[in-house]
Amino acid sequence: MTQPSFDPKAFRTALGTFTTGVTIITAQAADGSSVGITANSFNSVSLDPPLVLWSLAKSANSLPVFTDSKHWNVHVLSVDQESLSGRFASRGEDKFAGIELDDGITPAPLLPNCTARFQCRTAFTHDGGDHIIFIGEVIGFDHNDLPPLVYQSGQYALTARKPREEVRLTKAEPPPECSYTEDLLGYLLGRAHFQMVNRLQGLLHDQHLDQAQFFILSVLCIRDRLTLDEINDYIGYTGHTVEQADMQVLVSARHVVMEGPRYRLTADGREASLLQIAQAKAIEEDLVETLGPGDALALKLLLKRLIENTDPGLPDLWAVSV
Amino acid sequence: MTQPSFDPKAFRTALGTFTTGVTIITAQAADGSSVGITANSFNSVSLDPPLVLWSLAKSANSLPVFTDSKHWNVHVLSVDQESLSGRFASRGEDKFAGIELDDGITPAPLLPNCTARFQCRTAFTHDGGDHIIFIGEVIGFDHNDLPPLVYQSGQYALTARKPREEVRLTKAEPPPECSYTEDLLGYLLGRAHFQMVNRLQGLLHDQHLDQAQFFILSVLCIRDRLTLDEINDYIGYTGHTVEQADMQVLVSARHVVMEGPRYRLTADGREASLLQIAQAKAIEEDLVETLGPGDALALKLLLKRLIENTDPGLPDLWAVSV
Repeated sequence: MTQPSFDPKAFRTALGTFTTGVTIITAQAADGSSVGITANSFNSVSLDPPLVLWSLAKSANSLPVFTDSKHWNVHVLSVDQESLSGRFASRGEDKFAGIELDDGITPAPLLPNCTARFQCRTAFTHDGGDHIIFIGEVIGFDHNDLPPLVYQSGQYALTARKPREEVRLTKAEPPPECSYTEDLLGYLLGRAHFQMVNRLQGLLHDQHLDQAQFFILSVLCIRDRLTLDEINDYIGYTGHTVEQADMQVLVSARHVVMEGPRYRLTADGREASLLQIAQAKAIEEDLVETLGPGDALALKLLLKRLIENTDPGLPDLWAVSV
Repeated sequence: MTQPSFDPKAFRTALGTFTTGVTIITAQAADGSSVGITANSFNSVSLDPPLVLWSLAKSANSLPVFTDSKHWNVHVLSVDQESLSGRFASRGEDKFAGIELDDGITPAPLLPNCTARFQCRTAFTHDGGDHIIFIGEVIGFDHNDLPPLVYQSGQYALTARKPREEVRLTKAEPPPECSYTEDLLGYLLGRAHFQMVNRLQGLLHDQHLDQAQFFILSVLCIRDRLTLDEINDYIGYTGHTVEQADMQVLVSARHVVMEGPRYRLTADGREASLLQIAQAKAIEEDLVETLGPGDALALKLLLKRLIENTDPGLPDLWAVSV
């Protein structure tokens, strides 16, 4: 497995497997202009004295500014700052255009809305091959709870944090003759889905609605005036075929009226649906609080990627009608 | 937001928001014994010459070994090596016990099954406050596709990689009057679940089974000889109540037989269920290949945490019967 000779591309790939956060490092040039670059070579060095480091390519245009400047700021980017990361990674015109800077301790530009910031005074610089290593004394810092942006193997990423205790749903080992375990993705998705809907069950019961009718109202709430066939185009993949009789229940309950072959949501029907959505959002907010905002974002991202890859060709529920 | 004075705990917390991989760094002592420590202060420095760095606390027991040794190896840990990370982070007796080392270029111990490894010769050491910074020339490296272990804010983590293009299911902006969007977690879970089951639909059709019967067979496959009430204890949260009539269909199809008040899976019933599980696993394997193994692990972890937090108190399907 050991490389006898050195392939730079393979070396870069191997280094890329080491996950990092993403930072923007800024300084003020002698002429008062601002420079900033995206770097993932940041790391902590020392707690007492407080020191951090990062490396800058000797070929970088901004090298003279950073070597001349006594001060620079490190900004640990949040997941919302991916575009900022891209902007400062390219040789842009005015990377700071439109950004309202915060007031810092030093002249170095201080970007807002980051997960953490370290205001530094250069302590040492060291030669590091084709890079210069900057070691800075931290003279000010702050942080908040924004989920940080992550970089791994050339891609941005979010994190799914692992609780200290392993997460296991069953206390038992699965019986050896059965290959159905809690690790089956299909089982986890089904259980997660049904437990979420289960939390809506009280409301649906009060509304005298079943799950299929809940799905129908949801579809009509987004895309009104559909025929029975069109409703089934959106719902059929759930395995439930909507019949005239299902619709008749909704008509009798005055949630829906017929207009020729089309079903239209009444004000009552819309209100019933919006109540369901409001409760679904409240359930979600509870969960986001428990999982953490970054983990919730990661879950949604992964579900969307799964949905893209298992899409049986559903019509776009939100697409503009013709 | 800027700290006027320095709270070491707050500083540590702020530094912790910068995400890192996890490495174990090893060296051989003069007496031939092996030392190794867990470190997340690793980073790349230079491509040409190939240089990497990490920092070690001056208070570390292993400091003399690393300063005396010309060589050390950096191991970027995979998600499967979390316990190894813990072992090398503590002051253990023999951290290398039971580990069969690989052959390296240098005398430094080379651990197996890592995501990436860098075999290094010390190029420079620099003072870094309460740490020493080691800069090494990489004289050998290798890597593979094992998902790397991640560390963020004092917790281990997995990554959910973000594709270059933003993942959006609809091409349209949601209509403004409707607060139901594709970002509703409940929608994503439902759609992901039903699309997965949809992929089983062909098999279920061939087996003359509907989704509820598929769930019943799955439960009996794990936990046989249940009464109707017991089956409903496991399935009720899906919103579907199993009736005698549902069971009668399974009895007529010879998937299930009655033994007094209990239902038992026949050999045919077990085979039908195992076919379903095999197909569910094949669907999952396709998805793992598309998402990547690390992302698939992250998805499962997040779903398990969600399930723990929305569990209405389901009986443990896999628990040993009394």
